[in-house]
Amino acid sequence: MADRIKVAVIVAGGSGTRMGSATPKQFMEIGGKPLLYHTINAFLQAYDDMHIVLVVPETHQAYIATLLTAFDRPPSVALVHGGETRFHSVKNGLATIRQPAVLFVHDGVRPLLSPSLIRRCYESALAKGNAIPAVEMKDSLREVDDEGNMAVDRSRFRIIQTPQTFLSEVLLPAFEQPYDPLFTDEASVVERAGEEIHLVEGEEQNIKITRPVDLAIANAFLAGHGL
Amino acid sequence: MADRIKVAVIVAGGSGTRMGSATPKQFMEIGGKPLLYHTINAFLQAYDDMHIVLVVPETHQAYIATLLTAFDRPPSVALVHGGETRFHSVKNGLATIRQPAVLFVHDGVRPLLSPSLIRRCYESALAKGNAIPAVEMKDSLREVDDEGNMAVDRSRFRIIQTPQTFLSEVLLPAFEQPYDPLFTDEASVVERAGEEIHLVEGEEQNIKITRPVDLAIANAFLAGHGL
Repeated sequence: MADRIKVAVIVAGGSGTRMGSATPKQFMEIGGKPLLYHTINAFLQAYDDMHIVLVVPETHQAYIATLLTAFDRPPSVALVHGGETRFHSVKNGLATIRQPAVLFVHDGVRPLLSPSLIRRCYESALAKGNAIPAVEMKDSLREVDDEGNMAVDRSRFRIIQTPQTFLSEVLLPAFEQPYDPLFTDEASVVERAGEEIHLVEGEEQNIKITRPVDLAIANAFLAGHGL
Repeated sequence: MADRIKVAVIVAGGSGTRMGSATPKQFMEIGGKPLLYHTINAFLQAYDDMHIVLVVPETHQAYIATLLTAFDRPPSVALVHGGETRFHSVKNGLATIRQPAVLFVHDGVRPLLSPSLIRRCYESALAKGNAIPAVEMKDSLREVDDEGNMAVDRSRFRIIQTPQTFLSEVLLPAFEQPYDPLFTDEASVVERAGEEIHLVEGEEQNIKITRPVDLAIANAFLAGHGL
């Protein structure tokens, strides 16, 4: 398949109350720059022709202007308002898509993804329709139910990350389905629409920053502590 | 049930090759002290009458003497050689148990457990025969098989930690079973012996330190970065 326009739909619409700070978490800093700076920058580094759609709470759009000044050359970013749930936020972002594209849906609070992960997702989505980054589980797991709990084989499971990456002709129709609370990520929406999901190798450092300690962890990764 | 003798069997027998260092990981430092100092100290802080059995590779026993000097008052620690697998290492540690006890089997590389977690495990094991600390999953999961992969409800799963805590009359007979590679932790051994497993609330900061970045994470927790 020929090259496609590339659009990163970056979801930064959370209320951020878990961070115990007046600053929503996606605007907190690591390495002296806002999380969202790092997130956007990874996509810009991956491809020269990357387009950015940023889904943000309506009340924070003034902050975004400031965010963009963190770049040496402020990128062109389309701003979209967040919705009631992640599904609705992403759907608002997808409403901006006007032509066939490869669409990356990414958590704004995952600033440490590498450009090479983005390229891996792009190539795989181009070949197979979708690409969902995943990593192996390192922890022991047990499954709980009403009866009790039992050991499960962790090698059967993968931890799912973003960017969840799709051809637009796969993702856009899937988001026409009615909302279901079981839609916890874009893969679950596309799977419901009948598509087979394709996993690609994710990255250990591609963590989601939701607690204050995660900022310290992210700074440790940025400071070059390896795995 | 009346109070019991308390024995922590701390398994520090790994070869530590993943840390990229000549120092085995359980002897690396956080907050200026070896991981094992913090681990042992948590158990000593939990109960005055805590006994420590340390399972270590034969080649590192000289290091242990140095480790104990990190304590203001060096505790009494029984040293046992590690075995071929975790099962065999723990079994070597259990061979030192001579009377009814509550047994805590703990990973040496989990130095950040709190004394209150240890007490919670003790009380629950005393009441129910065993107590296994577990925390909820925050990541999205997919299950993989030969056919492909599918979304699973992460609320059905718990991440398992240590100290896995048992009455000695539950744990010791279970370890008489022949070794099976499916014995990934002590709960799986006891479950195979027919016991129902009881989960208790674990701790987010009770992480297993296996990569260099985990040392930075642990230092962040020690520095008082909350959750």
